Parts: sequence; C-alpha cells; structure tokens
Amino acid sequence: MNKVRLGVIGIGMMGTVYAKMLLNKEIKGAELTAVTDQKEEKRQWAKDAFGEDIDVFDSPESLMKSRKVDGVIIATPHFEHAELAVKAFKMDLHVLCEKPAGVYTKQVREMNEAAAKTKAVFSIMYNQRTNPVYRKVRELVSAGELGEIKRTIWIIDWYRSQSYHDMGSWRGTWAGEGGGVLLNQDPHQLDLWQWITSLTPVRIRAFCGFGKHYNIEVEDEVTAYTEFNNGATGLFVTSTGIAPETNRLEIYADKGKLVVENNQITFYRNRIPERQFNREWRGGFGTPENWKCDIPVHGNESGHKGIIENWVEAILFGIALIAPGVEGINGLMLSNAMHLSEWTDDWVTLPVDEELYLKNLRERMETSVYKKN
Amino acid sequence: MNKVRLGVIGIGMMGTVYAKMLLNKEIKGAELTAVTDQKEEKRQWAKDAFGEDIDVFDSPESLMKSRKVDGVIIATPHFEHAELAVKAFKMDLHVLCEKPAGVYTKQVREMNEAAAKTKAVFSIMYNQRTNPVYRKVRELVSAGELGEIKRTIWIIDWYRSQSYHDMGSWRGTWAGEGGGVLLNQDPHQLDLWQWITSLTPVRIRAFCGFGKHYNIEVEDEVTAYTEFNNGATGLFVTSTGIAPETNRLEIYADKGKLVVENNQITFYRNRIPERQFNREWRGGFGTPENWKCDIPVHGNESGHKGIIENWVEAILFGIALIAPGVEGINGLMLSNAMHLSEWTDDWVTLPVDEELYLKNLRERMETSVYKKN
Repeated sequence: MNKVRLGVIGIGMMGTVYAKMLLNKEIKGAELTAVTDQKEEKRQWAKDAFGEDIDVFDSPESLMKSRKVDGVIIATPHFEHAELAVKAFKMDLHVLCEKPAGVYTKQVREMNEAAAKTKAVFSIMYNQRTNPVYRKVRELVSAGELGEIKRTIWIIDWYRSQSYHDMGSWRGTWAGEGGGVLLNQDPHQLDLWQWITSLTPVRIRAFCGFGKHYNIEVEDEVTAYTEFNNGATGLFVTSTGIAPETNRLEIYADKGKLVVENNQITFYRNRIPERQFNREWRGGFGTPENWKCDIPVHGNESGHKGIIENWVEAILFGIALIAPGVEGINGLMLSNAMHLSEWTDDWVTLPVDEELYLKNLRERMETSVYKKN
Repeated sequence: MNKVRLGVIGIGMMGTVYAKMLLNKEIKGAELTAVTDQKEEKRQWAKDAFGEDIDVFDSPESLMKSRKVDGVIIATPHFEHAELAVKAFKMDLHVLCEKPAGVYTKQVREMNEAAAKTKAVFSIMYNQRTNPVYRKVRELVSAGELGEIKRTIWIIDWYRSQSYHDMGSWRGTWAGEGGGVLLNQDPHQLDLWQWITSLTPVRIRAFCGFGKHYNIEVEDEVTAYTEFNNGATGLFVTSTGIAPETNRLEIYADKGKLVVENNQITFYRNRIPERQFNREWRGGFGTPENWKCDIPVHGNESGHKGIIENWVEAILFGIALIAPGVEGINGLMLSNAMHLSEWTDDWVTLPVDEELYLKNLRERMETSVYKKN
C-alpha cells in the first residue's frame, strides 16, 4: 500500500474539516474516497460539495463494506464512536476516532478489546498531544527534571453561554451527549493530565453542578479531588459558567514547581530537591533556594492534521502513534469517575464500576428532554 | 482612663515581642505593668530583662487578680487561650488573644459567651487584616466591583522541614498543639478567606494527610472543598511539605476574576458582567470582553503593632476593632471542619458538631507522643 484510502463517518463540523483536508491533499499518503452521514441533507450536500469521485454512502456499515476504504475517521456524536469502531475493527479497517473515545467506559473497553483482535491501526484525535508546550512538560517530567510529583492542579474553564447550548437540541442533554463539560470540552485535559505526569489515578471524590449556570441537564461545573498511585494529590477544576476562562496547570514536585499558563512554562526550581534538603537541614526554619526559570518551547502545534498524518504514517510505515486509540479510555475513566462520585456522593475507586456507571447514566438518559428521532 | 495598663501572659516568642513593644513605649496609650509565664526560668529571665517596674507573677490568675492590669495579652500555647480569656472576662479585663482563638470550637464558643457578659474589649491577633493587599480586596468585594462570587481558591504553602518540627517536643503533636498546618500556619488565611469574601461556608469535604511529609502526628497537607451560602464553591489547599511555597488567592466572580499573588492584585474585568452577557448574547460561541487590570495598593501593613494599637484605642476611645475577638471562631470552625471531614470520611455541615469534634480530638491527644508535664 502506498496510499491509504479513507472514509469519513459523520460530516458535521469536525468531519467536514477532515474530509476537506483530505480532498485538498493536505495529508501525504492518504486520499478521501468515501463519506457518510445519518442525515439525508448532509449526504446531498456532500455529493454537491465533494464531487463524483467521492462515494457518499447511506450508512457507516455500507461504507465499511464497500471495499473503497482502508480506514475510517469516526466523527459522529459521542455515543456512536465505540460501536462504529468495533464494526470497523471486525473488518480490519484502520480507525481514527474523534474524542471522547465514548461516553461510558464499558463501550470503550469493548472497543479496545476489538482493536486488540486486529492489526488495524487505531488512533484517537488527541490533537493537544501535538502542542509543543505539553510535549515539553511531558519531556521534563519523564527526564526526571521535576522529580517525584506531590500535587497537581489543573484549572480549565470553557465559557459556553446559554446561546451556545441552544444551538442544538441535543446539547446539554444526557441522551444527546452523555455529559457536559467533562465529555465535550475537557477530554484533552483529562488525557494530557495523565499523559504528561505518567501518574495513575487511584480514587476520586468529585463535586459536580448539573445545570448550575445554564438551563441544561448535564454538568457545567466540576471540582474533582484525585489520589494518584504514588501518593500525589490532584485537583481538576472546570466549568463552562465562568468568564474569563482560566487554563492553568500546576505541578508541585520534589525538585520544584512547574506552572503552565498562557502557553508559557515557568519552572520554580529548587536548587536542592526538597526531600534532600529536609534530610540535611538542621536550622529549624528554612527552605531550599529556589530559581525562577523560563522554559523554552520549540516547534509548532501540528494539531488535527498532525494526528491524521501520524496515523497514516503508522499505517504505511509502522511509526509509533502519538495518540494510540486504546489510551482514549484513560481520560474517559476520570470523567466517568467524576460523574459517579457526585451521583453516589462517595469515593470512586478506579477502574470505575462500569455497570454501575451505565445504570446511573441510563436513568438520566431515560428522563432526558432530548429524544433521538 | 488615659493609659491602659497591660499584662502579657506567656512570654515565649510572640509574648516577648509584645512585652518589648510595650516596654519601648511603641504603643501610644498603653504601658506594660506585668508579665507571667508557666516556666520558672522564663519568669527569672523576665525579672532580669524587664526591670523592677514590671511585676512578674507566678500564674495568670495572680496576674489578673493583682489590680495591676486593665487588660491582658494572651500569648500562651493554643490550648490555654480560651480558658484564660474566660477568666479575664470574669474580672472584666480587656483581652487580646493570639491566634488561633483556641483548638476546638466548644472552648471558643464558651470564650465568646463569656466575652458577651462583659464590656471588656476583646480582640484577636489577626495581624494580616492590616495587610493593605487584603484590605483592598475586601474593599473591592464589598463595593460590588466583583459582583456575585462563583468560585474561590486559596493555595497556601508553608514549608516547614523536619528540623523545624524537632525544635520542640510539643510540635507536630495532637496533645501539644491540637493540629498542624491548619492550627499553626493557616489561621490568618482561614480568617481572611471569609473576611474578604463575606461568604459563609455551609459544608465542607476535606482530605488531610497526617504525617505524610514528616515524622509528626498532625496534618501536613490539606485539600478542602467548601460550599458557601450563595452557592459558590471554594478550595483551600495547604501544605508544610511543599517547596517552593505558594500563596495564591483566586476569586472568580460575575464581573471577572481576581488574583492575589506576590502581593499584587490583578483583576481580569469583564466589560459586561457574565450573567448579563449570558442573558443578552445570541451568537453561540462567544465570551465577554475582558480587561486585565493591575489594581493599585496603598498604605503599609501595621501588623502586630497595628492590632495592639487598635485594641488600645478601642479601649480608650471606643473605636471599631479591626479584628473583633468573637470572629476568631470563624477560621477555627473551618479548621475543625476540615479535620472532622477527614476523620469521618464524610461531609461536615457547619457549624461543626463541637462535641463530636472534641471526642475525636481527645482520642488523638490520649495516644499522642507528647505528654504535658
């Protein structure tokens, strides 16, 4: 194979972006051959917009069976991601899945199990993993520049007015989206938090506000306390109801404190690691000498295009994936745990009890104002 | 009365500072007439150091009964503050109490009840209330510049090595101090948080690490989630085990976001308040225009001296107190609630169940390595 033939499933906002990227030959080694969408008017629009060379299928299944594609990009509503990926894997088709990996971990675990049974290449659209700022922080952590992490806090707001939620009847509903800020806005941060620190969350106690700021069903505010496997504590604080928006990541570690805000990395470096200082110091009051360091960041964010290119190169040449699809479950696990902790008003130990989560989610979907037609 | 005669009870580190301030006639309208300390060697030192004009008493009770003082400054170990204040109020003596007001709210409530039965003037050493930075923030909040508060986060670290804890056998023990970072380092912030915002905490869920960073009995790490009466959420994050130290207060409100760090106030002001923007905006995605404003701070911190002067002027001229003693219970209430939430692994609704708290505290005091001689 020297060219990967791709189909795009779901040509909404992001699916259309990917289809056009491929049509415009922006992705070396790949070509768009087919698209599909559940809506008739979208399919008609695609026929007009993309031209006769692109097959427009009535369903994802017919697209997959057409033998016109080697892989699919799944850009449908969240609920369908995992189910469609499973179907693709059963036909040994390569899959690039939009974030989030799914809505609940049970379906995503099943997706990962299906992926393990094929040699198809599976990636997920974690385009923020191409952000040089976060790549740099991850590199610093893994090189040992921070030492043992003690505490990490991510405050991440995404202001979304009522007008935004009113743009689609599915928005802000349990049946339409399966969640709010955690499912729609935070998947990148929930992934990056673990990807950067290499810490494994052990248990979570979270506090969610549902429709606290807007007339919606789902969470528009979350404060989550997390305990990690090395004893470190974590706070994940997020809201769609707060303006101006904050995006501030703090990592407190043995060798100092690292802050990421406004795309800048500042490292407050202890000249002597704290634990060493503590062992050696005999003077009562006293703290390690600390240096404020501005950390350089090189390179550009290749973004969505970078993730697609990387996936295509992995298919063609076997290079390592930036965002392996099986890792999509990690961020979703945190998201599900945060919901479940609020619903049960208790700790949630990871991995989440997937049946309990699904039971709770379904109760909310059944009473949701959104009804899928 | 044109001169207030003062006695200092407990001439340890801070008591000695206050006694010398008075001896050096730094406090207009006040004079030192007596001191006392439970330790014989301290009393002997005081006789040598302060001269014959200053009476050195064997006990707080004899000092209070001597008719040589109109008021007392209580600078003893935490556990004795409330009990001594009650004795002073019964003799209608004015009281200035070191922070914290006490170790558990039951004793502090009893102190406040005793204070209510006398016309004596009661203040507490909340010297950070004289800090022009926090005075300015409080003024901005009360003037309505921030609008309704939605979320507030205070991250406050006080690095204290094992060497610091080893300086005294009482340090870091339940029987010696009744708590760790919450009782010793955080009283100012636990007070200022409420004093600045005028918010009332309704319930708390806190997570404490006891001896997590050091060989001590008490908490050296706390993460506390708080719900306030207006629906706002709060986080109070503190540790003695993290270097470098952070002191960052964030207040997220309808009219913008205010950050205090490094003695600087930055206000990110929404040109239109968020709730108004939300009502009026029809464009889907969109956020209020935001202005970064550097807020000027005027004046100096009068500190411990300012609090003593204010107390003396309140006695002589009836001026308003900067730090009324009865408000000492507010910060301690948060501290007790944070402990109790960790001990019961559950929510704590305020006001704290004072008997339950005391029962839990006493259990820890009984098994404490520190034994009072």
